[in-house]
Amino acid sequence: MIYITRKEHFNAAHRLFRADYSDEKNLEVFGKCSNPNWHGHNYELFVTVKGEPDPETGFVMNLRTLSEIMLNRVIDKLDHKNVNLEVDFMAGKLASTENLAVAIWHQLEEPVSQTGAKLHCVKLFETERNFVEYYGT
Amino acid sequence: MIYITRKEHFNAAHRLFRADYSDEKNLEVFGKCSNPNWHGHNYELFVTVKGEPDPETGFVMNLRTLSEIMLNRVIDKLDHKNVNLEVDFMAGKLASTENLAVAIWHQLEEPVSQTGAKLHCVKLFETERNFVEYYGT
Amino acid sequence: MIYITRKEHFNAAHRLFRADYSDEKNLEVFGKCSNPNWHGHNYELFVTVKGEPDPETGFVMNLRTLSEIMLNRVIDKLDHKNVNLEVDFMAGKLASTENLAVAIWHQLEEPVSQTGAKLHCVKLFETERNFVEYYGT
Amino acid sequence: MIYITRKEHFNAAHRLFRADYSDEKNLEVFGKCSNPNWHGHNYELFVTVKGEPDPETGFVMNLRTLSEIMLNRVIDKLDHKNVNLEVDFMAGKLASTENLAVAIWHQLEEPVSQTGAKLHCVKLFETERNFVEYYGT
Amino acid sequence: MIYITRKEHFNAAHRLFRADYSDEKNLEVFGKCSNPNWHGHNYELFVTVKGEPDPETGFVMNLRTLSEIMLNRVIDKLDHKNVNLEVDFMAGKLASTENLAVAIWHQLEEPVSQTGAKLHCVKLFETERNFVEYYGT
Amino acid sequence: MIYITRKEHFNAAHRLFRADYSDEKNLEVFGKCSNPNWHGHNYELFVTVKGEPDPETGFVMNLRTLSEIMLNRVIDKLDHKNVNLEVDFMAGKLASTENLAVAIWHQLEEPVSQTGAKLHCVKLFETERNFVEYYGT
Repeated sequence: MIYITRKEHFNAAHRLFRADYSDEKNLEVFGKCSNPNWHGHNYELFVTVKGEPDPETGFVMNLRTLSEIMLNRVIDKLDHKNVNLEVDFMAGKLASTENLAVAIWHQLEEPVSQTGAKLHCVKLFETERNFVEYYGT
Repeated sequence: MIYITRKEHFNAAHRLFRADYSDEKNLEVFGKCSNPNWHGHNYELFVTVKGEPDPETGFVMNLRTLSEIMLNRVIDKLDHKNVNLEVDFMAGKLASTENLAVAIWHQLEEPVSQTGAKLHCVKLFETERNFVEYYGT
Repeated sequence: MIYITRKEHFNAAHRLFRADYSDEKNLEVFGKCSNPNWHGHNYELFVTVKGEPDPETGFVMNLRTLSEIMLNRVIDKLDHKNVNLEVDFMAGKLASTENLAVAIWHQLEEPVSQTGAKLHCVKLFETERNFVEYYGT
Repeated sequence: MIYITRKEHFNAAHRLFRADYSDEKNLEVFGKCSNPNWHGHNYELFVTVKGEPDPETGFVMNLRTLSEIMLNRVIDKLDHKNVNLEVDFMAGKLASTENLAVAIWHQLEEPVSQTGAKLHCVKLFETERNFVEYYGT
Repeated sequence: MIYITRKEHFNAAHRLFRADYSDEKNLEVFGKCSNPNWHGHNYELFVTVKGEPDPETGFVMNLRTLSEIMLNRVIDKLDHKNVNLEVDFMAGKLASTENLAVAIWHQLEEPVSQTGAKLHCVKLFETERNFVEYYGT
Repeated sequence: MIYITRKEHFNAAHRLFRADYSDEKNLEVFGKCSNPNWHGHNYELFVTVKGEPDPETGFVMNLRTLSEIMLNRVIDKLDHKNVNLEVDFMAGKLASTENLAVAIWHQLEEPVSQTGAKLHCVKLFETERNFVEYYGT
């Protein structure tokens, strides 16, 4: 079993808040991240898939294919967008990095499995100092 | 003459657009950066000052002081904010990285000169692949 | 189960040696790291905790809280300090990166568990090219 | 159980292709990586070993020893070399990052085990955005 | 005057040698870089242009345009290529980083000046530890 | 004129203080950096030299030579050492990054000029967020 990883990035705006909280409560719970006028990040996304290398190509999965799946299913929907307002697979969810990583997993799991490889990990950096990992369970 | 540099960062939302342009024209000129729902970045700010080291302390300027000036005059006003809507020193200006770097220069020039050092360069990364430098003239 | 990670840093001096070794033996076993006049590093500390995201906040754990625990229990005790001489939780221990990582784990395990999350990994970089990971067992 | 990691690097040329494919087929399957005139990379190699720290030295394994094993068994054979033409342990194999990581594992497994530690992971970056991990099974 | 910089990268093979040197002399002068079977790098290219920001757009130059010029005139000709054998603007030149940076300058100078901005610096990293800068004179 | 840069690193302990200050005054002026038990850093040193590329080799200066000068004249004297106590060219000087950069310049200027190139800049990172540049005047 070999694990291969591809990194892609996107720039997006978001806000952490609950509509059923007052502004004060949002500020208390979510801090500066609750700013009603939004803020944003240069997100870095690392996606790891696993499998046996194909004896003919030496590839677990062509990284060009993995990159295309990431671009079509995740990056094009998030890059230069507002995570709270414009991303179909985040509709109705709090825009935390945790929730975003899980939602990205669900965007990728099936198209990766169709290639014969298996999605192993979604690792999402919100900043250089904060990141989240999700392994599907 | 010695040059010393301090790096600080901030996360902010912005949008590139002109109110006197149609949406189509904004998209044509500013591309994805014109998204009306905002996007954002992890900005990295490098500020360089120059001077002679004080023979008593070996410092051109105490980096603690430089960091405080940067936090008070720039970072606290930008971090987790919307550059277009909430930053007093950017009011009425296009939120391009170029304009932001020049505005940051004007925020810093006087408090730096009061320490006896001289502001030399403001270098602002919008992303790892795009950055701007301004030397005051 | 989601894994979230926070990075903090500290600058410290240390020395690798045993008092019951001669200087020659210390040099032979620990190399340049045995220098009696100390040397030091910019350590980078990555702490990973795991748990289920709170449905109300989308957080496994508020990263502000994790950062505070790291600062109070680890960073404030190590930053700009001598690991061999001044750090209570390293008293009587060889100041290897391995031992430091294990000791940091024991500083963090209980305060993290009090938040409802679970400490998963302490990853400590001594230099960009050398690092240690400890998972608690 | 503690995990320690050492990073080394090498610069090498390679080409992805099969002699039994036509040039067109090689281009279709391997893309630009099939260029008959070669291309190359600054590879970064992270090797992780695991074990109990020696109570006398605080070391799972002396990193100087790990570095020497990596240099003797892997880096000296790859650095400034052509992976397809000049690397004995890659003879007859497709020069994919997957295959290279597995072959590096087999170069390192025994000399690491002779130190009393156990090889845990070979992680090989081909570029900053593409990397492979192998855990031996 | 403002300076803006765009970073792009390419992976290429090269060899440092002179056809009028013996193999021994090439090895003596160019070291491991003279390997007849090639080696390669992940080059990082930073291109800086300077000018006054356009009052209408806030841009010295649209970074999309700068990126396109870099891709068309430099990256597409170098990426996954052999610098010695396949790059028209390096024909007949020693493939040193110095010569490559100067040649890249001449590829970029005119198309940049046609946009109204002025090429300021070509900075080329061969490895993380070695880089070259050229300012046109 | 072309500028080439080589990066090397060293790990060292230091302390900022004046013997003619009280401990309180040292703490007030130099903050945590005045800790009598030392602290330390992973310093990164970038040395830039300038000159015309040799038409025969394409080199401003052989980077192997530049690296050797840096190792012999600077790195070997600083690595795993105490800057205040053990470094001949820092004797009697405050161990600030500014003073260290100037002293490194004086270590390098003559051996670089003997190669026919000219020392241009010494850039010294104390941490990822603090660095100093010196151009010789």
